[in-house]
Amino acid sequence: MIPRYSRPEMTRIWEPETRFRIWFEIEAHAATASARIGIIPEAAAKNIWEKGSAATFDVARIDEIEAVTKHDVIAFLTHLAEHVGPDARFIHQGMTSSDVLDTCLNVQLVRAADLLIADLDRLLAALKTRAFEYKDAITIGRSHGIHAEPTTFGVKLAYAYAEFERARERMVAARKEVATCAISGAVGTFANVDPRIEEYVAEKMGLVPEPVSTQIIPRDRHAMYFATLGVVASSIERLAIEIRHLQRTEVLEAEEYFSPGQKGSSAMPHKRNPVLSENLTGLARMVRAYALPAMENVALWHERDISHSSVERMIGPDATVTLDFALARLAGVIEKLVVYPETMKRNMEKLGGLHNSQRVLLALTQAGVSREDAYALVQRNAMKTWELGKDFLTELKSDKDVTAKVPAAALEAMFDIDYHTAHVDTIFRRVFGSA
Amino acid sequence: MIPRYSRPEMTRIWEPETRFRIWFEIEAHAATASARIGIIPEAAAKNIWEKGSAATFDVARIDEIEAVTKHDVIAFLTHLAEHVGPDARFIHQGMTSSDVLDTCLNVQLVRAADLLIADLDRLLAALKTRAFEYKDAITIGRSHGIHAEPTTFGVKLAYAYAEFERARERMVAARKEVATCAISGAVGTFANVDPRIEEYVAEKMGLVPEPVSTQIIPRDRHAMYFATLGVVASSIERLAIEIRHLQRTEVLEAEEYFSPGQKGSSAMPHKRNPVLSENLTGLARMVRAYALPAMENVALWHERDISHSSVERMIGPDATVTLDFALARLAGVIEKLVVYPETMKRNMEKLGGLHNSQRVLLALTQAGVSREDAYALVQRNAMKTWELGKDFLTELKSDKDVTAKVPAAALEAMFDIDYHTAHVDTIFRRVFGSA
Amino acid sequence: MIPRYSRPEMTRIWEPETRFRIWFEIEAHAATASARIGIIPEAAAKNIWEKGSAATFDVARIDEIEAVTKHDVIAFLTHLAEHVGPDARFIHQGMTSSDVLDTCLNVQLVRAADLLIADLDRLLAALKTRAFEYKDAITIGRSHGIHAEPTTFGVKLAYAYAEFERARERMVAARKEVATCAISGAVGTFANVDPRIEEYVAEKMGLVPEPVSTQIIPRDRHAMYFATLGVVASSIERLAIEIRHLQRTEVLEAEEYFSPGQKGSSAMPHKRNPVLSENLTGLARMVRAYALPAMENVALWHERDISHSSVERMIGPDATVTLDFALARLAGVIEKLVVYPETMKRNMEKLGGLHNSQRVLLALTQAGVSREDAYALVQRNAMKTWELGKDFLTELKSDKDVTAKVPAAALEAMFDIDYHTAHVDTIFRRVFGSA
Amino acid sequence: MIPRYSRPEMTRIWEPETRFRIWFEIEAHAATASARIGIIPEAAAKNIWEKGSAATFDVARIDEIEAVTKHDVIAFLTHLAEHVGPDARFIHQGMTSSDVLDTCLNVQLVRAADLLIADLDRLLAALKTRAFEYKDAITIGRSHGIHAEPTTFGVKLAYAYAEFERARERMVAARKEVATCAISGAVGTFANVDPRIEEYVAEKMGLVPEPVSTQIIPRDRHAMYFATLGVVASSIERLAIEIRHLQRTEVLEAEEYFSPGQKGSSAMPHKRNPVLSENLTGLARMVRAYALPAMENVALWHERDISHSSVERMIGPDATVTLDFALARLAGVIEKLVVYPETMKRNMEKLGGLHNSQRVLLALTQAGVSREDAYALVQRNAMKTWELGKDFLTELKSDKDVTAKVPAAALEAMFDIDYHTAHVDTIFRRVFGSA
Repeated sequence: MIPRYSRPEMTRIWEPETRFRIWFEIEAHAATASARIGIIPEAAAKNIWEKGSAATFDVARIDEIEAVTKHDVIAFLTHLAEHVGPDARFIHQGMTSSDVLDTCLNVQLVRAADLLIADLDRLLAALKTRAFEYKDAITIGRSHGIHAEPTTFGVKLAYAYAEFERARERMVAARKEVATCAISGAVGTFANVDPRIEEYVAEKMGLVPEPVSTQIIPRDRHAMYFATLGVVASSIERLAIEIRHLQRTEVLEAEEYFSPGQKGSSAMPHKRNPVLSENLTGLARMVRAYALPAMENVALWHERDISHSSVERMIGPDATVTLDFALARLAGVIEKLVVYPETMKRNMEKLGGLHNSQRVLLALTQAGVSREDAYALVQRNAMKTWELGKDFLTELKSDKDVTAKVPAAALEAMFDIDYHTAHVDTIFRRVFGSA
Repeated sequence: MIPRYSRPEMTRIWEPETRFRIWFEIEAHAATASARIGIIPEAAAKNIWEKGSAATFDVARIDEIEAVTKHDVIAFLTHLAEHVGPDARFIHQGMTSSDVLDTCLNVQLVRAADLLIADLDRLLAALKTRAFEYKDAITIGRSHGIHAEPTTFGVKLAYAYAEFERARERMVAARKEVATCAISGAVGTFANVDPRIEEYVAEKMGLVPEPVSTQIIPRDRHAMYFATLGVVASSIERLAIEIRHLQRTEVLEAEEYFSPGQKGSSAMPHKRNPVLSENLTGLARMVRAYALPAMENVALWHERDISHSSVERMIGPDATVTLDFALARLAGVIEKLVVYPETMKRNMEKLGGLHNSQRVLLALTQAGVSREDAYALVQRNAMKTWELGKDFLTELKSDKDVTAKVPAAALEAMFDIDYHTAHVDTIFRRVFGSA
Repeated sequence: MIPRYSRPEMTRIWEPETRFRIWFEIEAHAATASARIGIIPEAAAKNIWEKGSAATFDVARIDEIEAVTKHDVIAFLTHLAEHVGPDARFIHQGMTSSDVLDTCLNVQLVRAADLLIADLDRLLAALKTRAFEYKDAITIGRSHGIHAEPTTFGVKLAYAYAEFERARERMVAARKEVATCAISGAVGTFANVDPRIEEYVAEKMGLVPEPVSTQIIPRDRHAMYFATLGVVASSIERLAIEIRHLQRTEVLEAEEYFSPGQKGSSAMPHKRNPVLSENLTGLARMVRAYALPAMENVALWHERDISHSSVERMIGPDATVTLDFALARLAGVIEKLVVYPETMKRNMEKLGGLHNSQRVLLALTQAGVSREDAYALVQRNAMKTWELGKDFLTELKSDKDVTAKVPAAALEAMFDIDYHTAHVDTIFRRVFGSA
Repeated sequence: MIPRYSRPEMTRIWEPETRFRIWFEIEAHAATASARIGIIPEAAAKNIWEKGSAATFDVARIDEIEAVTKHDVIAFLTHLAEHVGPDARFIHQGMTSSDVLDTCLNVQLVRAADLLIADLDRLLAALKTRAFEYKDAITIGRSHGIHAEPTTFGVKLAYAYAEFERARERMVAARKEVATCAISGAVGTFANVDPRIEEYVAEKMGLVPEPVSTQIIPRDRHAMYFATLGVVASSIERLAIEIRHLQRTEVLEAEEYFSPGQKGSSAMPHKRNPVLSENLTGLARMVRAYALPAMENVALWHERDISHSSVERMIGPDATVTLDFALARLAGVIEKLVVYPETMKRNMEKLGGLHNSQRVLLALTQAGVSREDAYALVQRNAMKTWELGKDFLTELKSDKDVTAKVPAAALEAMFDIDYHTAHVDTIFRRVFGSA
């Protein structure tokens, strides 16, 4: 997480001030619940809420205390006591640090998930708009980087839409994975803290109680969360690479918006580079990498060890901030993408109609030629187009073995582009519900 | 995937024979659907089913053809034609290799998921049985490897149960991710193949149609699948490490079953090592590692490139076979785990009652001592126990600053072990639905 | 490791027969050394060598014994005793299984490294030949996928050469990392085995003694080895992606050799796809992934745990066999690469001379224009070329602000292609030692 | 990289001020070299050095310019021109941004490597001191977490020393990997920049010229660098886990220093946790994870794409700062480690002499018993010790099958501890050069 690739709303979730505020809320809700079941005085719980709500937590002061205690929660509680006064002794009753830390982390991850889902919604909206805009813009489909058969630019965006809709569903599931709360004490037995307190705090913080915590909330939940971010990032990479390909000098079917004043190269004034999409490719690598330490964090020793903590202090912000930035950047790229339908057509024509080769192959087999022979017939004409630049249809029409089975007129009809787009509406209906 | 860590049922899914059989079924269902919509003769479709069903696909022969064509699906179709005869030209009409390959891969992954879910069910059953067996077996909970407060061995197994129940849910979701079918042609436009064929094949193969495929089924689905396997493997690692810790010479609270004739060490005849659990730790590393190339596979170029293929030929079997083996091995370890409740008690007593320190701390704060002072009071007595081996309760009772606030009798009552297990039933009800 | 991506020489290293033969050699050398220092009878050592050398080790029989002992080295020793007779009791004296296993693994990894180095030599030779062949073949250099300035195809191959020369150096270093031997007993103290035995075995097996082993040879060595393979694989990926780009329909400056009979697509007979290079991209992902579990293997517990073993049984063969196959495949691709220098020129000309923009920029600054102003002057003419397809030189010559500083004749001279290739010899001398 | 896990000297390398200063030095050295070969006026080069050296680069101002140009190097050059005046047009002549960026990155990585090597030196010194201090402190060696045979605590530290000495060698090699400089222009052809300028700048910056750069310095170098950091981190994890094991309540053979005022647990005042070592385990996971995106960075498109940049902006600081912090923390842990030799002895005795089992086994085979029978004889007595807590020597002496071959007196002699430490000096000489 570096400022260059950060947006303020997501960054704020991970700032010390936010963390301490969430810690306070957890402690204060726990105090209220404790008062309700008669463990601490009602007045104390009320006082804790009032004093803490009014307080500004002094990060430097807390750091100072932690320098001595080497324990962050104790440092915070000591500072909180400075605000609350004697009633502070009713705070954190029967709780262990992890009750606060883990519940707080999950609150942060849930909030981060909410932002990421909103990011995805913006991206999906952009993809949908542009997909319909270019629904009928013919472009050559490419497999292995080689021209295959025609599709439309709208279909390309439709596949991205479908992919990010899946990403959204996964994020909703990931959010649910971590939306749990633990207030269960030193080894999760509730020995010193009543389970009703956990239930109360969970509800107030928008979480559900963790069925069985062992001082900590189990880390398989977080592993799943960060693995999901890695998969979402991989989908970003896919679309970014598509754009990079389309912007290549030789292809140039689409281009990132190039703002006035922007410079492409310090040395070469003519350059307009797909730098945003390239940047997204790199950011995807990072988000993906964070999934691994998250998985290694699962196997903590016995009821807990603290090795996960340093990892999460880093990947918690790093992964969510980077993914948030990347999703927003990608949405911007799509929203402003400059599309060149004329170039798409021109590129498609480079292969002299070869993209109809399969259709001819099918017609030959329908006309009784074996698959093997039909393949050879088509290939020998295709190779003349490929290697000598001949027009494919012309070659076919002058190949008597072909016309013996499929007459010239029928061949011509096969080179009608509408054939390839006949089912675009079907695809759009599947993806967007309407065409 | 090596024989040592493989089980036959899972291995079979990945054998060439199985693959060719699935390929045939896809082609034959497509032929039936094509006949239904009048594209090929009904008799041809029937003949394809009959000849193909009766045929034994000759792997060596197919390899031989592929050596020339350098294309596996064409090699298979050529061989299939040798069985079917002239009607073979009605096979694969308008389809592209990926229609067969990707749909087949998903069938294989779905079957693999079914086996993995069954594995998890066996493991869950074992965990539940052993959890109830040791529901009340007191053991010390440990954080940071250090004695914390008591819990029960049943609770330890309950947390594993809850974790693997989540693993099961994730596997069900992962199965759904890949349960799709694509029969959409060269770039996914259905130009040469009617969408109704896809719908028919999907239903017959137990899948749903992929909303938009682009020659290939999008690889974010598979990335999610393999990432999920990695998370499940990480949970295996957690439980395996727990067992390895429990079997340490100094702890020895539980032990893997050691069969008659088994040898622990070629050099040291006294050794009984937790080799199965250590092995599981290593296998988890492998399954986790496979998640990464699966994520890198997402960003294929344009409508597809084939870089994912070599990855999947390896991780498809490697990840599923290894995880299947690991889950089965772990279930076996749990089923036969030798548990020593007496040692658990003995170990717990090593700390002279220190595990009650928090309860004393709480009592002092309840009696009006500030949290800071209470902590100091408890810590000074705890350190005498820790460093000099004194009995904690005795020390507390002879500390006048303590007894001034909490009388000796009350202190004694605090050392009652039942205090720590009071909520075991709550936990069991949450996890198992009953206690 | 699957047959499809395996070559026999590397595969053989990992076969049980090879492993047992190496085990035998280690044991027999240890016996000889033991005899020399008087621990066992000379005759016994001689007998062990003779019987063992003559023996064929029966893998099935060893597996059978292991099924009972659950210990592979004991199973082998039991089988070896069946060949050797009573003198077998002098085998493995004071040794621990890991002495055999770890030394054997290192012998295998050293042999694998030797093959990989030979693979690199073949690849380097191919790169050098083709680099000199196309030393002067002008092609456009591309940054961000966008035309930048001219270079030559020979220079492209020279950078690959330099990169794989580094790969070779790294492999030599990686080989050295694992070229150690441990015969140090149960916890590495030589309590039951004289250090002279280790020294003798090491020398005979082409290794050096591990300075301090702790039953095992430390796994940081292997982590470094497999990490190095991952880096080498990443270089393969770079060159493979270069080729994939060059073969794109719109670029087509080079192409993988397409053999007679080969089929590009089951549906589209015209396709010639860079499938080998795509395949290499996928294989690189796999080799890279194996580096991770190798790194996780380092932190074994105390003097050793066996979690590394399952990982190494898999990645030992998987990583080396895959990398060997990939290097050989890449060498083949380079050796037979079909290069189209005419297309390179044609592609370069697409930008109307824009690749000289920097030179004009420099001339303007040399003529006293500020960098900022010069950039603006060049960019405004470049954009006319870029957006309207104008010829860059013509535009510059008709821009009076430009010609006021740099006369038309001077501008024309700047569009001489030789300017860009003036230092190709320098680069070749640096890389190949001669130009 | 977060402040909590950062040290100022390493952090400083990555600050914008440092980066701009290095950029300036590269540009100014290039200007001097350009003047020397007569491309720009000597006076201009002198002026650039003087003005730039005197200048304070205003990070906020540069950010402001970059917000318009979207190009960081151009923004810097524009700001530099504000300091230098009209001579600024002689700066960056014929260079491309990457000449500055990549050379700067390598300067930073080299400086980071120097700090890491210094960190390793401190750690090595600590390990050596403590190793000699505890050279003869007997402790039980453990394989699989189970008591094996005795070793000494000094030998444990010696293996760590040997491992970190390898880490140091690897860091020296990694430093060399990235100690290169590129001033070769837009696609590395030196078209607009004389190779002598690169040679001059390289020497002045403590680097060597990159043999062939292609706008960028090839990223296989950086992949190797970060992979090396990952391996070093893995060695940190190994030692950290050793300490965590030794500090377990049941083992407690060594302990992290616990400073006055430190608090182990907010809930349990008796806790003293190995939190530093646990933290190191987590940090190792992070450094390891950064190796992956570094490897994915290698395969840039054609002469370069910029996807590596975002990755490096993050992992450059993240990996080096985290590893620097971790090494320093580990050195501190070792320097102050509290060691309990008495507990080591006590723990060793828990197994009733079983650690001599192998020696008895060897004596039996020496006395003519087959390996198989000897193993069974030892194991049956070992199991009585293991399961019933009997004294191993007593059992052996009362087993007539044993004493028939090895008399009681000989058995007793085998239980002498010095047997196990006879070669400690050998090991120390190997590792430290003296014992």
